Amino acid sequence: MEAVTSPQQESSGPITRGCQWLKSLPNKFCDKTMEIARKTKKLGQDDPRRIVHALKVGLAITLVSLFYYFEPLYDGFGDSAMWAVLTVVIVLEFSVGATLGKGLNRMLATLVAGALGVGAHRLATLSGRQREPILLATFVFIIAVVTTFIRFFPKVKARYDYGMMIFILTFCLVSVSGYRDDQVLEMARDRFSTILIGSCASLIVCICIFPVWIGEDLHKSVAANMGKLANFLEAFGDEYFKVSEESNENNKSYLQGYRSVLTSKSSEETMANFARWELGHGPFGYRHPWKMYLKVGNLTRDCAYKVEALNSYLNSKIQTPAEIRGKIQVPCKRVSLECSRALKEMASTFRKMLRTRSAVMHIENSKKAAEELKNLLKTSLWEESDLVEMIPAASVASLLLEIIGCIEKISEAVNELGEAASFRKSNATVLPEQPDSIQQETIQHDSNTAMPVPHCVIVVSE
Amino acid sequence: MEAVTSPQQESSGPITRGCQWLKSLPNKFCDKTMEIARKTKKLGQDDPRRIVHALKVGLAITLVSLFYYFEPLYDGFGDSAMWAVLTVVIVLEFSVGATLGKGLNRMLATLVAGALGVGAHRLATLSGRQREPILLATFVFIIAVVTTFIRFFPKVKARYDYGMMIFILTFCLVSVSGYRDDQVLEMARDRFSTILIGSCASLIVCICIFPVWIGEDLHKSVAANMGKLANFLEAFGDEYFKVSEESNENNKSYLQGYRSVLTSKSSEETMANFARWELGHGPFGYRHPWKMYLKVGNLTRDCAYKVEALNSYLNSKIQTPAEIRGKIQVPCKRVSLECSRALKEMASTFRKMLRTRSAVMHIENSKKAAEELKNLLKTSLWEESDLVEMIPAASVASLLLEIIGCIEKISEAVNELGEAASFRKSNATVLPEQPDSIQQETIQHDSNTAMPVPHCVIVVSE
Repeated sequence: MEAVTSPQQESSGPITRGCQWLKSLPNKFCDKTMEIARKTKKLGQDDPRRIVHALKVGLAITLVSLFYYFEPLYDGFGDSAMWAVLTVVIVLEFSVGATLGKGLNRMLATLVAGALGVGAHRLATLSGRQREPILLATFVFIIAVVTTFIRFFPKVKARYDYGMMIFILTFCLVSVSGYRDDQVLEMARDRFSTILIGSCASLIVCICIFPVWIGEDLHKSVAANMGKLANFLEAFGDEYFKVSEESNENNKSYLQGYRSVLTSKSSEETMANFARWELGHGPFGYRHPWKMYLKVGNLTRDCAYKVEALNSYLNSKIQTPAEIRGKIQVPCKRVSLECSRALKEMASTFRKMLRTRSAVMHIENSKKAAEELKNLLKTSLWEESDLVEMIPAASVASLLLEIIGCIEKISEAVNELGEAASFRKSNATVLPEQPDSIQQETIQHDSNTAMPVPHCVIVVSE
Repeated sequence: MEAVTSPQQESSGPITRGCQWLKSLPNKFCDKTMEIARKTKKLGQDDPRRIVHALKVGLAITLVSLFYYFEPLYDGFGDSAMWAVLTVVIVLEFSVGATLGKGLNRMLATLVAGALGVGAHRLATLSGRQREPILLATFVFIIAVVTTFIRFFPKVKARYDYGMMIFILTFCLVSVSGYRDDQVLEMARDRFSTILIGSCASLIVCICIFPVWIGEDLHKSVAANMGKLANFLEAFGDEYFKVSEESNENNKSYLQGYRSVLTSKSSEETMANFARWELGHGPFGYRHPWKMYLKVGNLTRDCAYKVEALNSYLNSKIQTPAEIRGKIQVPCKRVSLECSRALKEMASTFRKMLRTRSAVMHIENSKKAAEELKNLLKTSLWEESDLVEMIPAASVASLLLEIIGCIEKISEAVNELGEAASFRKSNATVLPEQPDSIQQETIQHDSNTAMPVPHCVIVVSE
């Protein structure tokens, strides 16, 4: 558009401008198409399961619509067979948890509401043709009002919202249709069986062909969030204590990864809600403690808030001069690095569903470094320095100390979860039980072996 | 259950225990019922619009089901009339935005997919009875796969997800049904008109009877979030600098209000998505800049992260001794109070949709106090104090300085939004235009008059 209104063409007539606009149209169309193609490709590459899901939906719908094409199948249900197709479209979701939740909600609600609807119809017909519509309308009104209100209960909303809607829907369908059609029982039965077929078809396709377990996604996401914080803390030391400004222009995206943790609460809650519907799969049992994932997630987020505060000192205008920062560089870097290692260790063992206390060693190390840092701050090194200039560095030190506390809490929560979900004990910790007094030693020893130690092989060439 | 397994009754037989369990059943039932009643009451009291919404749903469904009871209305549509009832159950949501979004999505998708379905049916019949099901199945498969994949595009997901589902649904319904029923056109027409009736009935009931505008909720929520931060900052000074521990046991809920701001992102985004569907209403035009609310919300959240950091110093184990804290008490309290006032002022004028720059005065005041604070920290007052003990207080001071920056950003975003949404200018600011150089003065003057100044009237009694 800018080309059209450029001063050069301002004077040309509307026809010329129109022509130019038309000429530019194919180009614009091309650009737009290219952009969409690029986005589509990215969407598929980011998560190839999306393509698989689309194909699964196509397959399930095509399969169920066979009911319509084959005479013998069609004869059983007639037009009601269409409900099976509709059910597949509605119920088949991306993850097994969501599909199971919707499918079970839909089947149960249809069953209960269908039965109630038949009952309401019978009751209404007893009262005579005149009063029948009034009674039916009253029933429908009461059921609709009560059920709609129940949908506001947070627990119901989280798990049974869809079922409640289908309950109203089926009740209306069965009881009201009964006024025109006396075969209410057949209708209710047909509706239920077609919905059963549709739901089962969705579930079979969803579970049997490349299933997407949302519980697994939640598990990975909680571990990944710890990893993101670890990445920040790993890079923080070097970034904060660097003397020159050389890498200021460089890509700092690795420092921004943690930001998605700050706003992950609602997606974690949704995932946990869906995960609770899922059957046992792989290492996750049916009664896997998904709620405890939310606790670990919340503690990780608390830690992310501290990291956010830490991050603000990286870009702050008021900076402690490099030479003053240099004095606390060693212990600060060590705290940050050990915290990062503890988080990485936790993320890695958590992802593998192992129970080790190997992170404890890194936490202990960071605590030792914290003591050093405190001692350093207590010395008279600072007498000559300006307090205002000291504040940012002091705040950074104080935040690092707090982060140790956060990570300890995460570690406890992860251990609790590991026990509740009976994660495997890591090989390294399978040692005879030791009295408490020397347990600390054992843990440190264990974690030393469990920790991924970089192997340096020095080959001396002659 | 605890009574049953108490040691005293451990020895009693299973029958006795069974009897006692049965005896306790009515009590438990009573307790449960009371609890549900209490929760229901609370749910209604917290937001009476929920009760109104439930009644609205009941009314709309009952109204639309009249189609079924009255002969002349029924004759027009026959069994298809049921689609109107189903549409009401599905489309009528709590807020106008959500209802409009769903209704328009449903109507448009039904129209387009119905037309395409008829076309697909015609094309398939041309190929002969044998190849018809193969062609139909191919069409259905392709449409289902492509549309399902399109649903993954974030922009589509946010606004047209429901429409995409209905598109697949209607396309299958029309094209597949056509195989058994040659009156495809009538079916498509009936489906569209019943859905039109259902959607319109939902919209009329939703908009005409106590409408819930989600845009208004978003507007209030953004203002309320600023207020929550202001409440914390107002109380923070007194809480942090209090000498004794007397109020430690007191209810500190007013200090925790800000926590909900930390996790408000997803609900704000949902509200903004729905709000964009809404018609103009009250002071909100049709093209109200709802997206800019998200920007203000994000900046408010950034400020909330700082407040979270501040809060951790209230409960920190390592505390600066009260006498050292006392030295920076006056400017710190002033910064915190002026920040709180600025936020309150913004929240209040924002809620009223006024454009004033009255918060600027408070920001300027807080900046002055910040200068004082910085000067105080530069003095030699601190020579004799321990740096480790100083750190928490110094960090608090530094955080307060950063919060000023955050609030300035919020103020700018609020002003931008005010301009884009053409908020009214407050009376106090309607003054002849002044040159830039003295604008600052004017603003301060304006805001002085706009600010709620406590009037002290001293009556001298004789």
